[in-house]
This record gives sequence, C-alpha cells and structure tokens, in this order.
Amino acid sequence: MTRRNALYAQSGGVTAVINVTACAVIETARLHRQRMGKVYAGRNGIIGVLSEDLIDTSRESARSIAALMHTPAGAFGSCRYKLASIDRDRAQYERLIEVFRAHDIGYFFYNGGNDSADTCLKVSQLSERMGYPIIAVHVPKTVDNDLPITDCCPGFGSVAKYVATSMREAAFDVASMAKTSTRVFVLEVMGRHAGWITAAVGLADDEETPVPLVLLFPEIRFDEAKFLAKVDAHVREFGYCCVGVSEGLLNAEGKLMAEAGTTDAFGHAQLGGVGPLIAALVKSKLGHKYHWAVADYLQRAARHLASKTDVLQSYAVGKAAVEFALAGRNAVMPAILRTSDKPYRWKIGAAPLEEVANFEKKLPRGYISADGFGITAKARAYLEPLVRGEDYPPYRNGLPHYTRLRNVAVPRRLATDFKV
Amino acid sequence: MTRRNALYAQSGGVTAVINVTACAVIETARLHRQRMGKVYAGRNGIIGVLSEDLIDTSRESARSIAALMHTPAGAFGSCRYKLASIDRDRAQYERLIEVFRAHDIGYFFYNGGNDSADTCLKVSQLSERMGYPIIAVHVPKTVDNDLPITDCCPGFGSVAKYVATSMREAAFDVASMAKTSTRVFVLEVMGRHAGWITAAVGLADDEETPVPLVLLFPEIRFDEAKFLAKVDAHVREFGYCCVGVSEGLLNAEGKLMAEAGTTDAFGHAQLGGVGPLIAALVKSKLGHKYHWAVADYLQRAARHLASKTDVLQSYAVGKAAVEFALAGRNAVMPAILRTSDKPYRWKIGAAPLEEVANFEKKLPRGYISADGFGITAKARAYLEPLVRGEDYPPYRNGLPHYTRLRNVAVPRRLATDFKV
Repeated sequence: MTRRNALYAQSGGVTAVINVTACAVIETARLHRQRMGKVYAGRNGIIGVLSEDLIDTSRESARSIAALMHTPAGAFGSCRYKLASIDRDRAQYERLIEVFRAHDIGYFFYNGGNDSADTCLKVSQLSERMGYPIIAVHVPKTVDNDLPITDCCPGFGSVAKYVATSMREAAFDVASMAKTSTRVFVLEVMGRHAGWITAAVGLADDEETPVPLVLLFPEIRFDEAKFLAKVDAHVREFGYCCVGVSEGLLNAEGKLMAEAGTTDAFGHAQLGGVGPLIAALVKSKLGHKYHWAVADYLQRAARHLASKTDVLQSYAVGKAAVEFALAGRNAVMPAILRTSDKPYRWKIGAAPLEEVANFEKKLPRGYISADGFGITAKARAYLEPLVRGEDYPPYRNGLPHYTRLRNVAVPRRLATDFKV
Repeated sequence: MTRRNALYAQSGGVTAVINVTACAVIETARLHRQRMGKVYAGRNGIIGVLSEDLIDTSRESARSIAALMHTPAGAFGSCRYKLASIDRDRAQYERLIEVFRAHDIGYFFYNGGNDSADTCLKVSQLSERMGYPIIAVHVPKTVDNDLPITDCCPGFGSVAKYVATSMREAAFDVASMAKTSTRVFVLEVMGRHAGWITAAVGLADDEETPVPLVLLFPEIRFDEAKFLAKVDAHVREFGYCCVGVSEGLLNAEGKLMAEAGTTDAFGHAQLGGVGPLIAALVKSKLGHKYHWAVADYLQRAARHLASKTDVLQSYAVGKAAVEFALAGRNAVMPAILRTSDKPYRWKIGAAPLEEVANFEKKLPRGYISADGFGITAKARAYLEPLVRGEDYPPYRNGLPHYTRLRNVAVPRRLATDFKV
C-alpha cells in the first residue's frame, strides 16, 4: 500500500474534548507511519484547506500532542462553513482536489457535527464523482448530542456534567438564600434544536440530593400558565425553585422565545437570552426574587470539569477513524454503540455517512416527563453513565495549564489563491 | 470558667467555602467541650436567632460535619438582614438577649461580610450596654473581598479561581471560532462595588497563555469610545477579544450601566445584566459577532473548583474565632495577614471589629493598569497566591456529592414569638 498523507480538520462549535480526538488521530497515525504519512491540519477547518493554509502536525512533539488530551477548544481553529453540493459548486471541489493532490492527501478526517457530516460525505464522493482517490472519515463531535446512530456524541458528556454540577451548586446557594432573598434561579443552557443538554440539567436532582427543578425543553412549546403554576408550587413546597431553560425554547406559536422581541415581561425587546426573560416573567407574575445565569461558552469549554467517559470516547472515535481509514473504509463515521446500561458498556462501530449526514436526533418524548417539565427514569439511565468519571487537567499557579501548539504552516505548493 | 453554649450564624450571600468555616467552628468547639457547650446555629442566619429557630449541631455526626468541608453554600441557611442600632431598635436587642439567655449562649459567631460585621459589633456591645455577658466574634466571609484589615476574604479565592479559569477556557473557545464566527466574548462577574473579582479575571491572561483581555471595573467609569477602540485593536491584532465586566460598572454619569434602563445599544430597556449590554454595544458599533455569559451564582457556588488556599483560610478563621472567644476576646474578627508574597505566607491575627464594620476595601488604583482596562503586576502578585491549589469534592455518579445536614431544631423555650 502506498504511503499517503492525512488531512484533519475541526468543524463547527468546539468542545472541551475535541482536542482529545485530534490527539487520538495524530497519535494513531504516528503508529502507522509506514502507511499514513504526515497528518496535516486545516487552519480554521475546511477554510484552511480551501485556502491551502495547512498546519504540519509532525512539527509538534509527542508531548505537545499528548497535552491536547487536557486542552479545550480547537487547537487548529474551527469554522462554520458548509460546502454546497458538487453539482452546485464544482469549483470548490476542484480546489479541494488541487490542494489534496499538491500535498498527497489520501485520508480526510473531518471532526464535527451534522453539517460537517454532510461536508465529509461530499468529500467522500470525490473518488467516484471526480476521480480523485480519497478516503473520507467523519469523526463525531457535538455538544448538541444530535447525531444519529451513535449512542452519544463526544463533547456532550462533558457539557452534561458541567450543567448538572452547576445547577446542583446553584441550587444549594438558592436554598440558603430563599428565606429573605432569591427564590427562583434560572440557568440558560445550549442546545437550540434538541433538548439533550436541558435534560442533563435534570441530573442535578436525584434521590440523595433532591432539587425542586423545572426544565424547559426546545421540544416542548412554552406554556406560560402551566410553567408559572409549577414554579409557584415548588416555591410553596420547598421555599425555592430552579429552572433550566434551553436557549431554543419556543413559544406557543413556535417562535424562538429569545427572538420573540417585544414579548418580554416588561414589553421591551430582548438583547438575547431566554434565561433573563423567564426570570423576569417569574418576577412580574409571581413576585419572587430571582437570579439568572447564562453559561454560554463556559459550558462547552469547561475542560476543568470534563467527563472521563467523554474523554475516553473522544479518544476512541479518533483512533477508530484512523483505523477505519487504513482499512480502506470510505464514507463512514465511528459511532459509539451502547451495549449495556448497567454496568455501562460501549464499543465503537462504523456508521455509513449517508445515514448520518443531515439527520438531527431530538430528545425522545419518552425522556421527558408527562408534564413536560422534567426527565424520566429512561432519560436518567441514558444520561448518567455519560457524565461519569473525572479527568482533571494539570494546574499551574492555580489555573488549568492548557497547551497552545506551534501550528507551523506547511509550505504552500500552489500558485493560485482561492477566495473562500 | 463556666461552660456556656455558642451560637453560630451565616449571613449575606453565601460562598463555595462558608461551610468550611462552619465546620471549623463546630470541630474546634467540640475540642473544648469542657468550656464551650453546644454549638447552635441560627436557621437562616440572624432571623433564626430572633425567631428562636435554632439548629442543634450536636445532633450531627463528626462525619456529617466533616462533609461541610466540601459542600458549598450555607448549610444552616443565610439571610440578608441588618440590625438597626441599639438606640434605634432596642426591642430587637432585648429579644436577642431573651433568646441567648433561654439557651445559655455565651459565645456568638457571625459569619459574613460588611453588614454582618456591623451587626456583630452591635451584639458585642450587649455586655456593656445592656448587661448581658456575651463574647461576639465576627468570622469573615465575602466573595466581594472588600473587608478591611484582612488581606483577603474567605470565599474570594475560589470565585477568583472560577472566573479566571472560566475566562481562560472561553478564550480558547473564541480563539478557535474567530475566523468565521464569534470574535468578542463578554463575561459578566460579581462585585457590585469593588473590582476584586473583575481583577481576578485578569489572571486568565499570563505569559504562558496570553489572552487579549479588556476588563471593566466598577471603580473606573465606562468610557465607550476608549473601550471600543481597545476591543477593536485586540480583534485586529489577535483576531478576537475577551471582555470581563463587573456587574457594578458605572456609566460616565456614575449610574449603574445595568440599570441605566433605556440606554442600551438598541434604545431598549434592559432585563438586567451589563454583560449582554456591552456585547450588544460591540456588535452595533464594531460589527463583531459576540457571545456573552453571566456566571451569577455559578461563580460563588462552584465548590468543584475551589481554591485550596481559600479552603485552608476559611478553616483557619473559623478555628481562630473559637480560640479567640475562649480567650475572652470580644468584638474581634480573625484576619488573614500576609507575611510574604514569594513564597506566599500568611497567618491569622485579630482585627478590632470597630475597625472592620462598615468599611469597604475597594480595588486600589495601583492594581489597575494605567489605561483602566487591565491589572498591574502588583495586582497579579496579590491575586495569584489566592487561587492556588485544588481541593476537589468527592464525586458520586459523575456529580459532586454534597451533604445536607439534618438540621434538627433546638426545642423552643420561649413562649413569645417575635415578628422579624
């Protein structure tokens, strides 16, 4: 088998553990130097590929690559950029082939979510449609946890651990203050289309540490009266109430609450953020003092609180991606397959990319309690194993010590520029 | 010496480590049973004392009390309630004495910030002014870090560690996304009157891990043009910019930005939150895509990321409080005295309460860089030791395992109620 180089690119929103996957791809490729040459990385994802701005990961020491295991976000830069179909924008694909050929790229690893799976599928068709031999493997990554076939998505377990921990901690705080001060605490979390992260907030409440919790899922349209009644009942019974709300919560008309503009509690437009909106509603309608938090990037960048299970799975998909590629498997994605809940067991399988691309896996209705404000035992059984285990980064002077790679550019070989 | 009981109460906003101090008070008192009888706790702070709603901590096992070491927020409940002076509201003090006498309270430990120090001072005057023999010791606690005399305040180091870590992690995220997406990230932090927490955000940026950072302190009035120029310069040079803003930021007229109502970037009223306001301003004036986070209670409840230094100091002040009381020292506060920066060394001293109560220690101008948007080397030398060391809580099923005490009520001995 001829030795050819590999190209790895990160895509879409980054996570606390996407670099774990990068580490796995590079370390596994280094074990197979006789068949896989250098691993190049696109600087800022596919944009770096199109503009021939590649990073030579072989210039990084084994130690630097290993440090990716505990470094959040995208070490090579990511981007939000979706390729059109080959028929609609052939020039882009011709450019990709030009860059691939110039650097003898035989393997393409695309590390992302839904949109990226679609891009990767298109790249996988270059051999057949445009005659350039390439093996393209999609490597799953998304905090939204909405890729099909795979039981969960690398990145999600760590966000889940972060939001559940944060809500539990905040709940202890509110419980202390409720007598004279804050009675309702609202935490806004990510997940615009699917309520997986919102469901994970539900783990804050368990048998040993009950928390009066109300969850607002993007899958369940907001019912103001029912919501207020539930919050008020919790405050009456427990003295306080915690609310976890998805950024993607929809109003009765199916419009995003956060964008519903003039409909907030005071009749004013919103700067964005459904969390403050819900909090203000509680205040104006029930009169309870509130606090709210919007975790935003903090939740998906929190490597200091990563789930060990997530770290192991993020590594496993990167390693499997290289092994699949070396076995000649084109247009696949390593998927995490759960083989048992108790004890939790999983293995890696191969999902055909055409079954992955552009499908969104929403939170099943059976994971949401009948009243629409909580999670079921089934959801709990699914979620709990994913947040298990701690994997602390090293600390220096009291702060996590994260690495920055040198990111040495590969000398350009093409005379032409390409406008992205 | 006669054996008398002790009363401990938590006051004001809680922290990730106030229970560490509670643990120290109770454990140290238990070592001196022959002189200090039971330790009672006010349920929800001083309100529980006034209403004779006391908790008997002797009903908790040594193991439960030890678990307070890793449990955030106020285990006995806190409150926001300030006593008027003895001259203005004598009835309240008569009630305190009535409750103290009924339960043979000889020692009063009040665990709080500025307002609490004032309350504790008033209680300490009961012997002299009203003839009830009591020793009152204030135990410092405030994330705001604004108590005088003590070098730092228990609770602050952990918030500092949290905000610096969070900003560093978010900075890695933004740096990955900046090519095609978010260029400016805004994190709103606590500290309404003093910029200590805002300054701590500055630790996210250091020599090994530079971060283009702009800090907005409550001590420096907001200068929109200068701020925008600074942000834009960072974006031009580094591709992105991170902004740490105090909830207490004031506009040019000295009004709270978050309450300046109709002055936001879109001319609309605000739901609260200067973070989203600043972010929207960046978008409207510079056109950069933004994200913002408001950490709110998450920052002060984050026991999972507590500073070991803070934990040790929180214990030390609780232990010293009991020792001071047993030594007959009334109207004092154990203060943390820094004896050396490098290596960082500290010891406990006694601060007279009348020098503590109602003084607010603001961030010195010398800790803020000349342009008003950063911290100086002096600030760094002060802050760095306070975030050092990790002290992880135990985890169960992937989440921190925090304790809830039984909080058994002390049988009431008074026939009268007291309206708080």
